[in-house]
Amino acid sequence: MPKGVVPKDAVTLRDVADAAGVHPGTASRALNDETKALVRPETIERVLAAAATLGYKPNLLARSFKTRRTNSVGIVIPDINNPLFPPMVRGVEDRLFEDGYVALLANTENDPDRQRRIFEGMVDRRIDGLVLATARRHDVGVAELSEMGIPIVLFNRVVDDGRVPSVSSDDATGVRMVVDHLRNLGHERIGHVAGPQSMSTGHARYSAFVSAMAETGAVVDPRDVVFAETFSIAEGERCAAALLARAERPSAIFAGNDMLALGCYSVVERAGLACPGDISIVGFNDMPFIDRVNPPLTTVRIPHYELGLLAAELLLGRLRNPEMPIEAVQLEPQLVVRGSTAPVHLRVGA
Amino acid sequence: MPKGVVPKDAVTLRDVADAAGVHPGTASRALNDETKALVRPETIERVLAAAATLGYKPNLLARSFKTRRTNSVGIVIPDINNPLFPPMVRGVEDRLFEDGYVALLANTENDPDRQRRIFEGMVDRRIDGLVLATARRHDVGVAELSEMGIPIVLFNRVVDDGRVPSVSSDDATGVRMVVDHLRNLGHERIGHVAGPQSMSTGHARYSAFVSAMAETGAVVDPRDVVFAETFSIAEGERCAAALLARAERPSAIFAGNDMLALGCYSVVERAGLACPGDISIVGFNDMPFIDRVNPPLTTVRIPHYELGLLAAELLLGRLRNPEMPIEAVQLEPQLVVRGSTAPVHLRVGA
Repeated sequence: MPKGVVPKDAVTLRDVADAAGVHPGTASRALNDETKALVRPETIERVLAAAATLGYKPNLLARSFKTRRTNSVGIVIPDINNPLFPPMVRGVEDRLFEDGYVALLANTENDPDRQRRIFEGMVDRRIDGLVLATARRHDVGVAELSEMGIPIVLFNRVVDDGRVPSVSSDDATGVRMVVDHLRNLGHERIGHVAGPQSMSTGHARYSAFVSAMAETGAVVDPRDVVFAETFSIAEGERCAAALLARAERPSAIFAGNDMLALGCYSVVERAGLACPGDISIVGFNDMPFIDRVNPPLTTVRIPHYELGLLAAELLLGRLRNPEMPIEAVQLEPQLVVRGSTAPVHLRVGA
Repeated sequence: MPKGVVPKDAVTLRDVADAAGVHPGTASRALNDETKALVRPETIERVLAAAATLGYKPNLLARSFKTRRTNSVGIVIPDINNPLFPPMVRGVEDRLFEDGYVALLANTENDPDRQRRIFEGMVDRRIDGLVLATARRHDVGVAELSEMGIPIVLFNRVVDDGRVPSVSSDDATGVRMVVDHLRNLGHERIGHVAGPQSMSTGHARYSAFVSAMAETGAVVDPRDVVFAETFSIAEGERCAAALLARAERPSAIFAGNDMLALGCYSVVERAGLACPGDISIVGFNDMPFIDRVNPPLTTVRIPHYELGLLAAELLLGRLRNPEMPIEAVQLEPQLVVRGSTAPVHLRVGA
């Protein structure tokens, strides 16, 4: 940095950070109106006090460089290993690439601390916007980023208050197709391995299941619903085991997504039962390669790649025009009937 | 930008770009010794001529900001939809995240033009280094980036000249385990659906197959080897169909990776043959969920997540110490025997 801009004896950001006992990045965020929402109030106070004591003057020139557009966008997802996300991420990246943007990718593992650090890292690097698949229904991090004026588009999951643009699937319609399919096959008792209720996907599918069952004249016994902590095979196994442990088990299971359904497969097989002969299983998502498992899974197809494309499209629109009205786009799902569902009378015994 | 730094009437980079008839980003790269390798020589000449005519003086202050470390690393892969890559990308990102780096992700589709644009976009954003899974055995883009002094680590695939650090699997050992397994089951004629020979993975596995067969006293009939253009299910289908069309078909197929093996599955099923009853099939990679297909695939396990972790580790080492000697790390593979291979005498007819 040339001497004329910051004299060698000037107080630097690092001096302030040292005096306040924080990392320079934290001090920088605390001193910036755009980013201070990411810092704890008591830390901001400490940094401001140190800056005042030392007579710190922020290097405005440096900041003017930093606030320029970077043509970079963050993609934040729970875990790229969930086969749901690769096609969505491809969709986002393909659309961004078309407009000359680069994508920063990060996995949160649904861990709020990790998510916070990821947001900080991305804000530090002056991303222009963010597409986010990790939102909880009530999400403090998302609210903070929105307040900082960073354009965000949610994809796959949404937040309850509806003040953030989003692209998701019409889960209510998808679940109704599942229930109609199973009821038409003669299933009366249908168990549900529900996804986590803190996430919109888990919650919307559970609510839709209860409503759709009621519409067909069936009442759901609460003991036929088991709630998973995560959308994982292991949780699918735990929940399916609980359903099968009941004296009279349901003749069909609707799993909140395909990973949970794979967990059901394992438990049914270990119990010496046949799918679909003894028990029908339905998933949700139609994730890649789920048509190749044994038996091929009946599920609800979500257009994942298109969902990613649209999320990027919506974000690029907001970057061109920040005043754009908030949209909540819902994509139509489709029931894909494969080998894991059969008429109830095929059951051997009960 | 404050007037004192760039007077309003100064010649800007955009003026030079306009005069040369190129994009400002291209003009910037052409004028920078570190990046001009990415620009065609005739374009560089045109930009230099325009800069001289207009009396352009680069904004050195801006450049000094731009040449600082950004703590960002590019991850470049062919396609995140190939189930091989999510665990590797997670490994890379997890290790980078530990050290406070962010990851830029891009998919090249193995398209050299797209790869070039991706490299440009990442260099423009001053990534500190790059981990790359898209290398061809002779890769001009990789050579150019290396010459620009951008630290690169290759993962999964390597280049022939060995002057770039890399982390890959010991494919020769893996293939020898496949051949021994099939020979021990009594298979004498083993067909090979080989991967693309422009990629180290396709080439190394093919060469190892021919050598390992010779070591067991079997000579490979060249007509029993079909070369795929890409590592895809569709190409697996095309190649397997060619193998099965021969008057006397092999009793086993070794596919260059699991995607090719899935293509073999489809063709064998369509031909009314049973796997493994009529024909044994082996893959390579042990990609996620391949243990759930029907029949579960016998394959060679590569530790994908660890491979990603190590690639990031190697790159971070080079960022700390650019003089580090060039390493080519090879991870040990493991044969995983599942339901797709059986003794040859189980065949019904021939």
